[in-house]
Parts: sequence; C-alpha cells; structure tokens
Amino acid sequence: MALRDELVAMGARAREASRRLARLPSAAKDAALLAMADGLEAARTELQETNRRDLAAAVEAGLSRAMIDRLTLSDGVIAAMAAGLREVAALPDPVGEVVRMWKRPNGLVVGRKRVPLGVIAMVYESRPNVTADAGGLCLKAGNAVILRGGREAIHSSLAIAAVLDRAGREAGIPEGAIQVVETTDRAAVLELLQLDRYIDLIIPRGGEGLIRFVTENSRIPVIQHFKGVCHVFVDASADLERAEAIVMNAKVQRPGVCNALETLLVHRDAADAFLPRVAAALAGAGVEIRGCPETRARVPAATAATDADWDAEYLDLVLAVRVVDSLDDALAHIDAHGSLHTESIVTADYANAQRFLDEVDASCVMVNASTRFNDGQQLGLGAEIGIATTKLHSYGPMGIEDLTTTKFIVYGQGQIRE
Amino acid sequence: MALRDELVAMGARAREASRRLARLPSAAKDAALLAMADGLEAARTELQETNRRDLAAAVEAGLSRAMIDRLTLSDGVIAAMAAGLREVAALPDPVGEVVRMWKRPNGLVVGRKRVPLGVIAMVYESRPNVTADAGGLCLKAGNAVILRGGREAIHSSLAIAAVLDRAGREAGIPEGAIQVVETTDRAAVLELLQLDRYIDLIIPRGGEGLIRFVTENSRIPVIQHFKGVCHVFVDASADLERAEAIVMNAKVQRPGVCNALETLLVHRDAADAFLPRVAAALAGAGVEIRGCPETRARVPAATAATDADWDAEYLDLVLAVRVVDSLDDALAHIDAHGSLHTESIVTADYANAQRFLDEVDASCVMVNASTRFNDGQQLGLGAEIGIATTKLHSYGPMGIEDLTTTKFIVYGQGQIRE
Repeated sequence: MALRDELVAMGARAREASRRLARLPSAAKDAALLAMADGLEAARTELQETNRRDLAAAVEAGLSRAMIDRLTLSDGVIAAMAAGLREVAALPDPVGEVVRMWKRPNGLVVGRKRVPLGVIAMVYESRPNVTADAGGLCLKAGNAVILRGGREAIHSSLAIAAVLDRAGREAGIPEGAIQVVETTDRAAVLELLQLDRYIDLIIPRGGEGLIRFVTENSRIPVIQHFKGVCHVFVDASADLERAEAIVMNAKVQRPGVCNALETLLVHRDAADAFLPRVAAALAGAGVEIRGCPETRARVPAATAATDADWDAEYLDLVLAVRVVDSLDDALAHIDAHGSLHTESIVTADYANAQRFLDEVDASCVMVNASTRFNDGQQLGLGAEIGIATTKLHSYGPMGIEDLTTTKFIVYGQGQIRE
Repeated sequence: MALRDELVAMGARAREASRRLARLPSAAKDAALLAMADGLEAARTELQETNRRDLAAAVEAGLSRAMIDRLTLSDGVIAAMAAGLREVAALPDPVGEVVRMWKRPNGLVVGRKRVPLGVIAMVYESRPNVTADAGGLCLKAGNAVILRGGREAIHSSLAIAAVLDRAGREAGIPEGAIQVVETTDRAAVLELLQLDRYIDLIIPRGGEGLIRFVTENSRIPVIQHFKGVCHVFVDASADLERAEAIVMNAKVQRPGVCNALETLLVHRDAADAFLPRVAAALAGAGVEIRGCPETRARVPAATAATDADWDAEYLDLVLAVRVVDSLDDALAHIDAHGSLHTESIVTADYANAQRFLDEVDASCVMVNASTRFNDGQQLGLGAEIGIATTKLHSYGPMGIEDLTTTKFIVYGQGQIRE
C-alpha cells in the first residue's frame, strides 16, 4: 500500500476509535491502563530481545553513548513505563467534568463540559518509552493517538505498541486507539501533517529542527516546545544561601533538560558577596562560567561571554553570568533573551517578587524556587506530555486536562430567541 | 516599501505594543474604549463620507443589495459600534485573574494566571464594523491586533481604525495596538500568515473559501469557524407546541446566520402529529421543505431531498426534514452530517436529554432551546469574536477570556528539587 493510503487508513481508524473512546467509562479506561502496565511487565523479556535489534543497529551506526542509553529498554525503563501507566490510571478522569455552569436571565442553564480533543499525533525522536507514556495519557483523556517515533527505536516502539494494543483490546479498548507509524522517514511525517480531516493536534517532541519542520509543514494545529533558555535573577535583597542552593540545583541537578538554568543574572548590589561564593560552588561541580566583564572582575576563572552566550541553551555544565544594575535591567534581559520557558527570581523584596511574577512573559514564572520545578509532575498536574512555550491552548507543562477541550451544554425549557 | 517589509514592520510594532498592553491597568483600557466609542460617534459625518467611496465602488462593481447593506455605515451601525465598545469596557478584565491556585506537598504554591495571547490577526471580509468590534475585544484582553478587512470596505475600515487609534493614543494606548493592513489582495494575507515571529493567532471570519485558504497557508495557529449545519431533533416525547416554537425560531428568526436550523429530524412516533402542523407554520413563513420519503408522505408540498441536502448550509428559507426511527438514528445522522456547530433535542425524556448532551460532538449541544442561542452574547460571555468549530484552545463562541491564555506562577520559599 502506498504511504499516503496507509496513513489515511490509520487516520480513519483513529477517528473511528476516538468516537468510541469519547464515550468509554472511566472504569474501562483505567482497567485497560492497568492491563497495559501488567502486559509490559509480562513481556519484558521479549521487549528486551526486540530492543537489542535497535541497539545493535545503533552501535553499528556509531551513535553516541548518550543516544544508546536513551534507546535502551532496561529493566528500570520497563518498570517505569508500567508505573507511569498505573499513575495515569489513578488520575481523575477529566472527561465529562463540567468546569463551570451558570444561569442566564431567560432561564437557560449554560455549562462548559470537558470532552476529548479527538485524535492526537505525537512525532518524537529516540526514546521508545514515549510510546507507552503518551499512549497512556491520550487514552485516559479519551483520545486516539498516532505515534511516529524515531527510526533508531522503531522496533522497540512497535513492540511496545503491540503489547499495549493487545492488553487494551482485551480490556475493551477499540482497535485503532493507539497506533504506531512504521515508516520512519520524513516523508511519513509530511503526509501525517496533511491529515487535518483525521488529526486534531500534533505534538512534536525532540530537537528544535524537528519542531520547526513540523510547524512549517503542518495544516494541523501544533503544540510547540522550543528551547529553554532559563534564567535565575538574584536580587539585591536575596538570601545568599538560598540563592546559592537554587542556582546550584537549577544548573547541576540535571543539566541536560529544558528547565535547567542557562543564564544567571545578579544584581550589582549582591555581586561582590554572591559571585565569588557561587562561582566556587559551581567550580566544585565542574561548571564552566562565561561571564560579562563585571562578572569576570569578581570571578577570575570565568571566560568572556560572547553575544551568543546570552541566547545559548547549553544543556551542559556551562553557565552564562551577567551583572545587572536593577530589576528593570533583569526584566529587559529576560525579555530580549528568554525563551518563554521558565524564569525565577530570588528575592526578599515583596514588590520585586510581585513585579517579576506580573511582568515576565514565560510559561512558568517563579519566586524563590529552582527552575527545575517547571514540570507537570512537580507542579501537581500528574504526568505531562510536554511543556508548551507557545500560548494557544496550553502554555507551560501539559497534563491530562490539556488533552481535552470543553463544549457548551445548554439546559432549556423551551426558550426561543427574541 | 515592499509588501513584506511593510507587514514585518507592522508585526514588529504590534509585538512591541503588545508588551505594553499586557501591563496596562484595566482602568486605562476601559477609559480608552470609552474614548474610542465617543470618537466614533463624533466622527459620524466623516466616516459616512468615507463610506460613500466604498459604496460607490460597490455599486459600480455590481455587488448585491445584501453586500451593499453589509458595507453601509448607517447611523445605526455607527451607534452599534460605539455601544459595543462601551459594553466591552463594562466587561470584567480577564487579564491577571488567577484561575486556580494550589499548594504542593513541598510547600510550593502554584497558580495559573491569565495573560494576553500577544498579537492577534483578524482576516475578514466585507463588514467594516468588525474593525471596531474586534479591535475593542482584543484591546480589552491586552492584545495588539492587526486587522485585514475586505477590499470592498477598505476605506471605511481605515477610517474607523484611524478614529480608534487617535482616541486610543490620547487615552494612553501604545502606538501599534490596532492596525489595519492597507493592501487588500490575497498576497497580503499570504505574507501575514508567515509572520509567526510576530503574530500568535489568526482568526479568519468569512466564507469557507477564505477560511480554507488561511488554514492551508498559515504557519500561525488558526481558529477556524466552518459552516453551521445545525439540527433540531424532535423526540417521540416532545411537547409539540414547544417543538414548533423552537423549530420556527431556529429556522426563521434569522435564516442567514450560522446558528440557524438547516435540518430537522423527527422521531417516527411524533411524525404524524408534528410534521403537518410544523409544515403549515413553515409554509406560512415562506420556508421550502425538502423531505425524505417519510416526510413527503406526511407533507405533500415538500420536494424530495437529495443526498446533498443533508450536508447543506442553506442560510436561506429552506429546510431539510428527515424522519428517523430512534434517538440512535438521530445521533448517527448528526454524527455523519453535523458540522460540530450547534445541535438541539426537543424532548420530555430525561435519559434521552442526557444521552444527547453526552454523545453529540458539537461546540454547543442543547436541550429544549433554539439553536439561535449559540452566540457569545446569548450564552453570557459578553461580546464574541467568533464561534470556533475546531477544538484546540476554544470550541464554541469565543469571548474575551478566549483571547487570553494562562501562565504558571510559583511562590516558593527556597525549594529545590531532590
């Protein structure tokens, strides 16, 4: 079958499944999620056997150690997928919730009721576990999902999807609820992006190149997650011990993720006391500092930051540091160089805390907390499907509720319009 | 200046204005809206003089009477624009509202706070009053707006925007908050749709052709409003007097709009009693009936419906009528032919009312009420900017809140992630 026909058939199956999923009781969805978790654990040996094919190809292709790590379905990764599905089963079902209801002067009772989005397509790169994580979240929110994972993990992804499909169908989930595209080249993505008749939302997960490619070629709405150039601003009034703990946590606890700290801004009045101590702590953790002249005057080991450093997402043990004259200057720097992802101020000043929260445009703005908390689980949404840095539909971490929309419902008693 | 450069400059001005608009106090926005309303009334004579240029061109081009009506800035239309701006001023400001706030086990206090979307572009057809209506709503929600109206109304739109701009700036609204694109060919729309650096959302208002053109060519998220093929289902248990009043209101009160009734479904058990009486009432109002064979057996004056009638948006005094065997058949018909717009059941049966509300996928689902109520004003949202029949971000009538998004705010006390 030609690629386009194959994808159209998948789209039609997904659309049909989505109509049935929308009406499925919570108990049926939760039972299916638990059966899927059990199924993954029971299939561990066969999943790992299949995974070895992807790993062998990866070694042969000379992929990096980090890439191969991400591909590997270790015991721990399989256990985490199963635990993730069980967590999603335990979340409240968003579908059917009436988020607000009010009465009109003519007696009409009007409400907004949560319903699934319909069909969601995930386009992602190497991690095969996304197959289970995204599949479970979409199912719980009553959506069908089409998964198009990376070439490197394709055998593993297909094997995981087969386990989910088998377990789900035995528990009453309709055929087509969770499907994986077998063709892994970009042509398949391009075709997928044209299927606006069948797909309601595209969520790309991966590098900036993938996300731009999807955005530029899609006829279907795309939730975008671009890079995270996250800042911590240490205000003049900051408690320096607290500031140091937050900076270290934000930079070092897991430097390779999007909510890690990339640029530290320090108020001039705190610079003499704060920069030498935080530089020592950072050096102890192996962090390279690239500083402005004011920073280098206080931290001799720092190299000189270039213009590019203020826009860099290092995802590594590197930190850009700049001394600023005021809160206004910090806000202007973030406005110019931030990526609408995560921004944090460390301060003891009430007015500055409020101004920072009000005026910074980012998906998550914090006072006296590590940027690492911008995460669906950490903020209390349960599992997340991604962090949106665009504003339409969702802005920030997307939990299960963000995979739904609301329709208007109206209870009348024969009203007609004058 | 080349078209692209001109639009990029407009985009940059709008982006800059949007940063300032986001921080503007409610009182400043409301004062500006009231000044704009006064300004429009004060400029009535000059607006009507300019409008005559558009009207003369329309007559020369042989436009229909209805088109010319829509173009005309009568005293009534100008008064309605001013009243609309005053109504928007009286609405609560959505910006800054914290829609929910909760505490995490580690003490972090997390909230979701409403913020403007940023820059909105409206692409619309002939009515020049959209310039004021959309401009006012976008301003109140803290957004900058770029308006690209139809060629036929361009002089009127530019004149209205000039009045708004002058009144707004005197009241402290930044330059670039409300701008009108002077170039009215499709090339300008195409260029606008590429400006994803500057524009956050595109809202097209007009015929299906325009909306498809925008959707297929946009890199920016689009809120779509396709046609309204709205149904009323008269159930076996319906109060027939109530059913007749609802059908007549939905079909006849204003047939040329998207929430007007297009197909009537009647339960077989109600058909003998209901069809002859409603047919008489419809005939009295000049409505042509196109019926299924079962309908024609009961309404001799009805012509035969073809397959195309079940998908038609007549926007005229024509009604398709079909007899169905059950609620299930009515649901299946709506599933196959509905347009996700507005669907209503007339019933006295509790279980059927609940099933209809649950199972029908449409932006607004009603029990015992006229489809004509699917409108932002009627449902209590205040003025509306359109009705979305796609599900992302908004589904149904879009009020002022739908022109905002929420960002996460976090109040910490030094928390770091384990």
